[in-house]
Amino acid sequence: MIKTQGYAGYDATSPLKPYAFDRREVGESDVLIDISYCGVCHSDIHTVRNEWSGAQYPLVPGHEIVGTIKKVGEKVKNFKAGDVVGVGCMVGSCSSCDCCKEHLEQFCHQGCTFTYNSLETDGNITKGGYSDNIVVNEKFVLRVPANLKLAEVAPLLCAGITTYSPMKHWKIGKGHKVGVVGLGGLGHMGVKFARSFGAHVVVFTTSPNKKDDALKLGANEVVISKNADEMKKHANSFDFILDTVSAPHDVAAYLALLKLDGTLCMVGASPLPHQIASSALIWGRKSLSGSLIGGVAETQEMLDYCGKHNITCDIEMIPMQKINEAYERILKSDVKYRFVIDIRTLKE
Amino acid sequence: MIKTQGYAGYDATSPLKPYAFDRREVGESDVLIDISYCGVCHSDIHTVRNEWSGAQYPLVPGHEIVGTIKKVGEKVKNFKAGDVVGVGCMVGSCSSCDCCKEHLEQFCHQGCTFTYNSLETDGNITKGGYSDNIVVNEKFVLRVPANLKLAEVAPLLCAGITTYSPMKHWKIGKGHKVGVVGLGGLGHMGVKFARSFGAHVVVFTTSPNKKDDALKLGANEVVISKNADEMKKHANSFDFILDTVSAPHDVAAYLALLKLDGTLCMVGASPLPHQIASSALIWGRKSLSGSLIGGVAETQEMLDYCGKHNITCDIEMIPMQKINEAYERILKSDVKYRFVIDIRTLKE
Repeated sequence: MIKTQGYAGYDATSPLKPYAFDRREVGESDVLIDISYCGVCHSDIHTVRNEWSGAQYPLVPGHEIVGTIKKVGEKVKNFKAGDVVGVGCMVGSCSSCDCCKEHLEQFCHQGCTFTYNSLETDGNITKGGYSDNIVVNEKFVLRVPANLKLAEVAPLLCAGITTYSPMKHWKIGKGHKVGVVGLGGLGHMGVKFARSFGAHVVVFTTSPNKKDDALKLGANEVVISKNADEMKKHANSFDFILDTVSAPHDVAAYLALLKLDGTLCMVGASPLPHQIASSALIWGRKSLSGSLIGGVAETQEMLDYCGKHNITCDIEMIPMQKINEAYERILKSDVKYRFVIDIRTLKE
Repeated sequence: MIKTQGYAGYDATSPLKPYAFDRREVGESDVLIDISYCGVCHSDIHTVRNEWSGAQYPLVPGHEIVGTIKKVGEKVKNFKAGDVVGVGCMVGSCSSCDCCKEHLEQFCHQGCTFTYNSLETDGNITKGGYSDNIVVNEKFVLRVPANLKLAEVAPLLCAGITTYSPMKHWKIGKGHKVGVVGLGGLGHMGVKFARSFGAHVVVFTTSPNKKDDALKLGANEVVISKNADEMKKHANSFDFILDTVSAPHDVAAYLALLKLDGTLCMVGASPLPHQIASSALIWGRKSLSGSLIGGVAETQEMLDYCGKHNITCDIEMIPMQKINEAYERILKSDVKYRFVIDIRTLKE
């Protein structure tokens, strides 16, 4: 077994604390990764606080993992020790269902194995990247482009692919008017990708003080969503709106901004259902949709795209010991735009 | 002016009664149609009872109109006296906006002119097909295939195109599993079209006694939607579900039956908003959409398709004088599947 040092939640309410545990030995198709950095996703908080239920403690969060391969199993084909790699939200799937065959492992009919708090075939519960190493089947390991700053790559593995995938699926490009609702970890990546794909990008935010930042990130326009007049000016004009907000909010107000055949895609999971009138979709043949991360192959495509176009996340680095403060700041939207844990600080 | 005899609602609560009024003279681009039959749509009831607000009395409903051209204006190009034609839900639109240019007049940015209770450019309120004639710009007049029974064609102008259009838009065909929710005027046409397009068709109904009828209409399977076990068997299996129900119902239960990238399209307008959890769409990248009738060109395409494939509505003919009883029976879903008024009875 491989000795591992990490941070875990021990129950739904206490702060995260140090936790020592064992990883499985490196199997024939596995790689062992020395973790350098791990991004902090809002999902980590939901999961460790059992807000989505099913939390299994001690729970080690973290699914925006980057590091260096230390060892590979004997049948590993695509990686070698020394490779700089990433691991995202998934570490396993059935590989034989329709979804897996279509490279959409996130929708695996058997349920994919998530990077933490998920049951593995060996009966263990997966433990994530708030730790100094991880053992992962090579199928779920991604190559990191050498030209990007490694710490800034970490959040691409969740926030990046979550926003890249739907915009690729709905074929966003030149001539499209794209809205991005919310300017957090997901939203700021949504802006970067939409702009990079050639769209005209409008950011919707409740915070007037985010206006300058949104423009700096690449937004062409910023709308304060509380201002009904500003919203009205954009009625029936958007090809696509990416809604990254996971708090309850008025989705119908954004449906009104879609043009004919427009799509509003939700990537944030609000805890309460949305109130959607049939008429909001019937008039204009609009669609309300959702999207979940992306498959492994598409995640690699996204990383390669980021390498080519020099796209990374805007991050604030923290030592492992500051994770609980970071959680509180995330809940106040007080981060630009993603915390990344410097995993080397675990040893301090 | 053209003397017209019809039936109108005089307020939101009284029964419809005879009403004599004038139509405009036949303009240079207009045709005058002697109406033979008019279908009875649930929208007629909503509108005349002011359930959608905005009712202007006396209100003459009816937008599933078929008859024979009696006279044409001097600039009319495509029709001549004696032609057998139809008029659907629209009689005008701006013809210059993006939607009109794309032959989607139903989404005209200026608002299309509906066949009844709609403001015309001359300041009059349109009056529908519960009447012995109508004057319509030729752009909104449709040719009826000669091989079809005329009375059975009438409801194609609304119930037909409302179900044909979304299935064409979402490219339903062989290899698709299609659900049709509700077996009324819209639903029974949805079944006929879906089957004709080559799909495997599953009807969802709350009424076990509709099972045999659904199979006769062409359904491959029938699911009693109140039976949770039956519903569960179809989880994650549908490419497309056409939801024709306009009463409040659990749309989320049908979202669970869609497979990856599946679409649930609503064509019935429930008076209450639906409760839609983000997660119901995020898992499986599903879409909740809507569709509204169809453009004029597509309505003609649908009629031609029906002519070629010998598709019409199953109807129950009534004399004009029975319209109020028909409304009560519609509200009890007691019709297979559409009432059609024999307009000649107006003279009785």
